[in-house]
Amino acid sequence: MKIAQTLESLPAGGFVFDLDGTLVDSAYQHAFAWQQALQIERLYLSLWHIHRHIGMSGALLTEQLLRLLGCEISTDRVERLQQHHAQAYKRLAATVELLPGALELLRSLRAARIEWIIATSGYRRTAEHDLGLLELAESAVVSRDDVQHAKPNPDVFLLAAMRLQLPPASIFVVGDSVWDMLAARRAGMFGVGLLSGGYGAEELERAGAARVYEDPADLLAHLHELGIRV
Amino acid sequence: MKIAQTLESLPAGGFVFDLDGTLVDSAYQHAFAWQQALQIERLYLSLWHIHRHIGMSGALLTEQLLRLLGCEISTDRVERLQQHHAQAYKRLAATVELLPGALELLRSLRAARIEWIIATSGYRRTAEHDLGLLELAESAVVSRDDVQHAKPNPDVFLLAAMRLQLPPASIFVVGDSVWDMLAARRAGMFGVGLLSGGYGAEELERAGAARVYEDPADLLAHLHELGIRV
Repeated sequence: MKIAQTLESLPAGGFVFDLDGTLVDSAYQHAFAWQQALQIERLYLSLWHIHRHIGMSGALLTEQLLRLLGCEISTDRVERLQQHHAQAYKRLAATVELLPGALELLRSLRAARIEWIIATSGYRRTAEHDLGLLELAESAVVSRDDVQHAKPNPDVFLLAAMRLQLPPASIFVVGDSVWDMLAARRAGMFGVGLLSGGYGAEELERAGAARVYEDPADLLAHLHELGIRV
Repeated sequence: MKIAQTLESLPAGGFVFDLDGTLVDSAYQHAFAWQQALQIERLYLSLWHIHRHIGMSGALLTEQLLRLLGCEISTDRVERLQQHHAQAYKRLAATVELLPGALELLRSLRAARIEWIIATSGYRRTAEHDLGLLELAESAVVSRDDVQHAKPNPDVFLLAAMRLQLPPASIFVVGDSVWDMLAARRAGMFGVGLLSGGYGAEELERAGAARVYEDPADLLAHLHELGIRV
């Protein structure tokens, strides 16, 4: 009897979704935007290198790209590159679409009264177009503007759990990048990887993804594997 | 004595290089070009799905994308999409650069009198800009124009070995895609994967890559692992 009472008091699980490459098909455009940002500074880095850094904090990413290039890392340069990137992404954003099943997944969870929120490493102003596609209210998003450190630090995910008023251990983090999985692990959350950002399944698993699905549509079709009833 | 004589008669190894994502940083532009080609036909497929098909025969790729979209596959449509792709890629090709170490790798092998040739699934006219970056003679390339079936069929690699006048078993195939590794295996060649096309290391290993390096520069720094002296 006592065990049954304890179980009843367990909160239902909640979802925290990454944005780029997870709900919207924008990971590749972000890679191109960073390459264009570097070109303005007369620097060149291969797209695969840039691609594998998408999803982490913009400042961390910029510093790491400059390190890979053997360049001097100054606060000025890092800020300038982030501005170039935001402008370049704005030009490319018109080609960005929702990933298959993104809206259906969010709607199905809502209909089943399962809480969710979006947590992105990007600034709200950069994510504007993508959030528009999802027809979301401001309150449904935790962004770079709300925390001191973005992914792979766990801050955005922990803040997201607070907004949902759920304990971290009851949260499923859904993301496409290794940085999502590392931050989820640090936050004590359950990582679910999606291939839709362009990483391989094994890369996500090695970073801590407990399950890997193709895209939001594939996750929706397999929610029962997470014990979620919709 | 007899063993020593046999060993002396073994031909030195030769290299067959894939082009896109292996020597030139063009895999992502090809993915975008296919997406644009689909858009002309009012179709949309996520970039990661397209990305994972780059490197295979254009006709096979087109048919598979249409299959994923649940569309009718007609010869007309497949040909039209390939033409759209070639035109879109031409517009994007100006942003394509050599991968780090590509020229140095080819030059080092030549200086060490180790034979190499390029084998691409693309048509020569599509690869024009990329081949220009490598400053290559026509004869240094086996392309889609030369064979009936491109990768993952082994034809381009087998023809490349014939051009080099080397037995397949002595050939190292260097490529960035799963389709290179599958074709290498079917040709009885030794597959070496590069991450520079955007696949994960484990994906390449599972498809048959015996070793995986980052890009041409990283391969050049580790040629000793293949028993190659330059």
